[in-house]
Formats: sequence, C-alpha cells, structure tokens
Amino acid sequence: MPREINKDTLLCMSLAGRPGNFGTRFHNYLYNELNLNIVYKAFTTNDLQAAIGGVRALGIRGCAVSMPFKEACIPFMDEMDESASVIQSVNTIVNTDGRLRAYNTDYIAIAQLLDTYQVSRDSVFALRGSGGMAKAVASAVRDAGFRTGYIIARNETAGRELAQACDYEWKSEVSGIEPELIINVTPIGMAGGPESEELAFAPEVIDKVETVFDVGAIPSETPLIRYARTKEKKVITGAEVIALQALEQFVLYTGVRPEDELVQRAAEHARS
Amino acid sequence: MPREINKDTLLCMSLAGRPGNFGTRFHNYLYNELNLNIVYKAFTTNDLQAAIGGVRALGIRGCAVSMPFKEACIPFMDEMDESASVIQSVNTIVNTDGRLRAYNTDYIAIAQLLDTYQVSRDSVFALRGSGGMAKAVASAVRDAGFRTGYIIARNETAGRELAQACDYEWKSEVSGIEPELIINVTPIGMAGGPESEELAFAPEVIDKVETVFDVGAIPSETPLIRYARTKEKKVITGAEVIALQALEQFVLYTGVRPEDELVQRAAEHARS
Repeated sequence: MPREINKDTLLCMSLAGRPGNFGTRFHNYLYNELNLNIVYKAFTTNDLQAAIGGVRALGIRGCAVSMPFKEACIPFMDEMDESASVIQSVNTIVNTDGRLRAYNTDYIAIAQLLDTYQVSRDSVFALRGSGGMAKAVASAVRDAGFRTGYIIARNETAGRELAQACDYEWKSEVSGIEPELIINVTPIGMAGGPESEELAFAPEVIDKVETVFDVGAIPSETPLIRYARTKEKKVITGAEVIALQALEQFVLYTGVRPEDELVQRAAEHARS
Repeated sequence: MPREINKDTLLCMSLAGRPGNFGTRFHNYLYNELNLNIVYKAFTTNDLQAAIGGVRALGIRGCAVSMPFKEACIPFMDEMDESASVIQSVNTIVNTDGRLRAYNTDYIAIAQLLDTYQVSRDSVFALRGSGGMAKAVASAVRDAGFRTGYIIARNETAGRELAQACDYEWKSEVSGIEPELIINVTPIGMAGGPESEELAFAPEVIDKVETVFDVGAIPSETPLIRYARTKEKKVITGAEVIALQALEQFVLYTGVRPEDELVQRAAEHARS
C-alpha cells in the first residue's frame, strides 16, 4: 500500500496530451516497494512553457514527456543528454537543483534490448515506420552498429528523410531484400487502430527472418509477435521497450536500480 | 491507508518558505476517508511567478499559500475573493479551468469562530500584534461588528497603521482599559520562540476578561490558554483557527464539507 505523504515527499510526474496509467502505476509501485519518499502523478497542459517552468520552480524531481511535447519542450531545457540530442526528441527530464537535463530513454531502452537479445550487428534489417518513434529506433539501431538496413515507409518524404539521416535506404515495400531482423514502428497491429488485426510484415517475409521486434505495445502480444512466436522466431516486444524505458527513467530520478524480478512485478502491476 | 494514484488523480498543494506537515496530513487524511481521488503535497520555491504559472498550467486544483508568499502572489492572481482583497493577503488559491481565484481562509475562520463562540459584538477588545496575521484578525473582528477595540503593539508605526486601517486605537501596552476580549497574534507563548514561557497578556488583565483568543497554535495549549483555562475563561485556540482554515480550503477545493467529527479526527491526525 502507498505510504503516507509528508512535507519531505518528492514529486515525479509526466506530461502528455492524453495521460495514461502505465507510468503512474509503475513508478509508484517501485517507490512503495523500495520505501522511497516520492509520489508520481500524470499531468497534461495547454501551456507547455509554463508547465516546464513549474517543474523547475517547484523542484519536481523528474518529468516524463510524451506526445505531443517531445520536440516542443527542447527550447526549455538547460542541458541535453546525447540520447535526446541525437534524435532531437525528449521523453525524460531530470531536475537537479533547478537545472533541467533532457534524456530519451526510448533510445536507451532500444539499444539495451538489441544488446540483451544479442542481435547480430551483421543482420540486414527492415524497419517499418517513419514517425518520431521510428526516428528513435532507427538512430539506436545505427548507433548500435547495424550497417545494412532499409526504412520501409508508405510516406516517401518522411521515409527518405529518415533513411538519409541514418545512412540507410528507403523502400516503399519489403521487396527484393531478405531481412534477418524486422522492426515494426507503425500502429499496424495495435489495439484500437484500423489495422489492429493486420501483420506489419507479410508472412513470407517473417518466415525467413531470425528476429522480430515490434515496438507496438498494446496489446502486449500483437498479431506480428503472435505469428512470429508460432514460427519460433526470436521476439522483442513493445511491452519490453515500455518497461525498460520506464525503468531507465526510474534510475535517473532516484539513482536506484531495482532488481529484475521487482521490475517485472512493477510492469505487470502497471499493465493490469 | 492512502488509495493508489492513477491518471485521473488531482493534485492540491502548498507553497511555503518552510513547508510543514499539517496541511499535507490534514488534507490527505480527508481525501482518503472520503475516498476522493486527490493527493496533497507541500512545495517551496525560489521563483514564485513560475511556481504559480505551474499551478495554472498543470491544472493543480488548489494551492495553500504561507509566508513569505501571501502578499507577493497577488499580482499573479486572476480574481480576488473579498476575504483576500480586504486584507490584501492570500492564503488559498483555487484553480478552476486555469483561472486562479484567491481567498484568505484565516480571515474566514476567525469570523466563524467569533460566531461559533458567540462573542458579544459589544465587547471591548485588545488585540496584541501588528504583523500580517494581526491584519487578518483585526479586519475579521472589525467586519464582524466589534466597534471598540485597541491594537496593542510595541512597533508603533505598524501598530498605528493597523489601528487606523481598521478604525481602532493603538496603544503600546494594555493600561487604562478593561478589555472583555483579548486576542494574541504575536509569537509570545509559541514553542521554539524566545518568549515560549511568557503570557501575551498580564495575569491581572486576563483575570478580568470574558474571552481569551490565542492565534498561536504551537503548542496547541499556549501558556495564555493554559492560564485562561485555570480561570475558567471562554477560550478560542490557534489550533482551532488552523483546523478551521484548512477545512475551508478543503471545502473550496473539493466542494465537500465533511462532518465535524471527521474534521476533528483529521486535525488530530495532522497534529500527531
């Protein structure tokens, strides 16, 4: 159960256009389990500059940043960690004595997952998507040392731009290539969307790959992940990205790195 | 025990130079008992304008204001309730859809206590003090209809100014008058101060009054209150002011007026 708040309790928070429950439940669960005197609360705003000014002036220790504020908040930061500057996108602000330092723990989490799952850097990959999260993933993949890859995007302008920025090649469809790693960073297969039942890659493409990485996290098992599992592929899920990026936020805010088992419980609690 | 925070939880807060525990414990106790989805947290700041801007931009529902911000916050308000405008001092901000309305629940609480204890408006009173809180008390006394009274203050300039503002008379000492109501609004008798063992009025003055009102709240029984009780005087304590002004804040923030018995329990919990 939550501990009682007192005058010394710190606040961590999130700013999002449409706040969700995951961060709130994940962080508060860990604060309680580790007996840290911190509470976490989600906010939205229609005045981003004043909201960030409030974070600084009220000594709010940390602030997660979600759509549509990830780029818009950059002018109000005091320092940019490389994880945020390399993709010009912020998802985490750490306030140390009134100085705001920006990070991107999505980028950090993706790099860690490619390590953890020992995905060979020689793998040819195909990444589908061209939005803000695709930029974070493609940059993490590039910085991890993957040399040969394709950005697959229906939007030619955004697709070419992202491919060029990361020194990869753009294609409108997966054809004429045989990727060993496929990465979905589109809403295809996500619950609630118009393509919730669709596979982000064709079955004949999936059948030939080694590793399937779906950044889509709702549901925790997308059609792509489900299909890949039936084919006994190595899979990396969006649920892992979300939990890991939240964990990295937690470490930045508190300086404490909880054990894996506890993080698993926090993530399960937050999803439930 | 506190309920779990989720994405819909509201925040109420306080701004003080040196945050205490009373408000945090009082409000959170009532939120929990009444199952309201709100949390309360204390803050300090060295950038008042940005802090108030944050209250507005983050949709923080309510904000208690303590020393040294009670007058300094006025330029940042959108509306002033009469309780705050009459004394040009704010202790409560209510945020309704981004509009900040300022109140002074100390003023409201004092007026209510004079009613509750049925202190006769014909009583001659002596009020000792000339600071910000003395202004709130003297104004409440004046607006309650007390016609004849004396502001007793060692600081002649501040004392005369307050007396003139409220249409009373200034005196440096209680001499040559026989008050029926005495009110202490100085730190005399408060724990931790240099005069913690002192009586704010001389015994021979106290012996002759009907009602003793000590706004000092720490300890909950000051030497003045203790002495007055031995003489079987009617007493009004600072602990009552604190609990009542916090209750009025609670009502302004939530629209809910808890029963007396519950308020008593909340105040006891907050003091413990």
